[in-house]
Amino acid sequence: MTPQNLEDIYIHELRDAFSAETQLVEALPKMIEKAMQDDLKRSLQHHLEETRVHRDRIQRIFDDRGMSPSGKTCEAMKGLIKEAKSFISDAKSILGHDAPGAVVDAGLISNSQRIEHYEIAMYGTLCTYAETLGHDEEYRVLSSTLSEEKAADAKLNEIAKQIVNPAAASLTH
Amino acid sequence: MTPQNLEDIYIHELRDAFSAETQLVEALPKMIEKAMQDDLKRSLQHHLEETRVHRDRIQRIFDDRGMSPSGKTCEAMKGLIKEAKSFISDAKSILGHDAPGAVVDAGLISNSQRIEHYEIAMYGTLCTYAETLGHDEEYRVLSSTLSEEKAADAKLNEIAKQIVNPAAASLTH
Repeated sequence: MTPQNLEDIYIHELRDAFSAETQLVEALPKMIEKAMQDDLKRSLQHHLEETRVHRDRIQRIFDDRGMSPSGKTCEAMKGLIKEAKSFISDAKSILGHDAPGAVVDAGLISNSQRIEHYEIAMYGTLCTYAETLGHDEEYRVLSSTLSEEKAADAKLNEIAKQIVNPAAASLTH
Repeated sequence: MTPQNLEDIYIHELRDAFSAETQLVEALPKMIEKAMQDDLKRSLQHHLEETRVHRDRIQRIFDDRGMSPSGKTCEAMKGLIKEAKSFISDAKSILGHDAPGAVVDAGLISNSQRIEHYEIAMYGTLCTYAETLGHDEEYRVLSSTLSEEKAADAKLNEIAKQIVNPAAASLTH
């Protein structure tokens, strides 16, 4: 195999996606724990379950090819999670010990939506590659994941509307 | 000022955006240099000019408030750029010295779209905050940036269609 083609980029990015999903499976429980509003907690919990499925779908693509999905670290997801974690740990010091839950939730949603958008771009590219390369079954599977990431982002938008207003109502100046 | 409110989260995220734009102004020239296809090169060059404007808009928001935009590092953008850079430096070793330009370009577009999506999520949140807080002029300015980021992503989508096919045509198995 001459490593000069779109197929190699595709495999490279699939490994990147596997790393991203694996990191997210580890990071989401901490975010869920900090979420105050029930809808947000439930939505992140649901997304954690989906994220495990997304990771396993990529694992299966590699299994079917007799290859390993490991060996690459998604630096972008590492940065996104680092930022979300630093928001969580800073929240108390930025916002004070009695920070209103809605304000913390607003920040959690902001961080989660950046993660979702990253994944939407990632799966958008993977779908284009899989389709162009004629990997029809992989295209079908990756498209399902893409739809689920978009739905997760839309749900967060909806919750944001319920949360941002109470957060603004807790303005003290 | 009691640090307990949406206003503080908004300022916190504006500083994050300033750091993200500043990092991007530094990173884009390297990506432009590696781009092969003229449309892609031109489009990234245009986006570099826009990115400078976006950074300056945030600077002006802080100036008008008599505050400094510095003091925060956007870890997510740091990761996104690290990933784009590692793609560029790996490209030769992954793809071989005679890597077809279209394949390199496909990877550059993939990385650029992830960056765009991150910014779309970032400015989407900032607009919601500015609007909710009644910062009408800042909302107007941030909305312009959001529209330009979306247009940049759409343009990259269009170029991807022209590029992914030649990249697939250079498949050697």
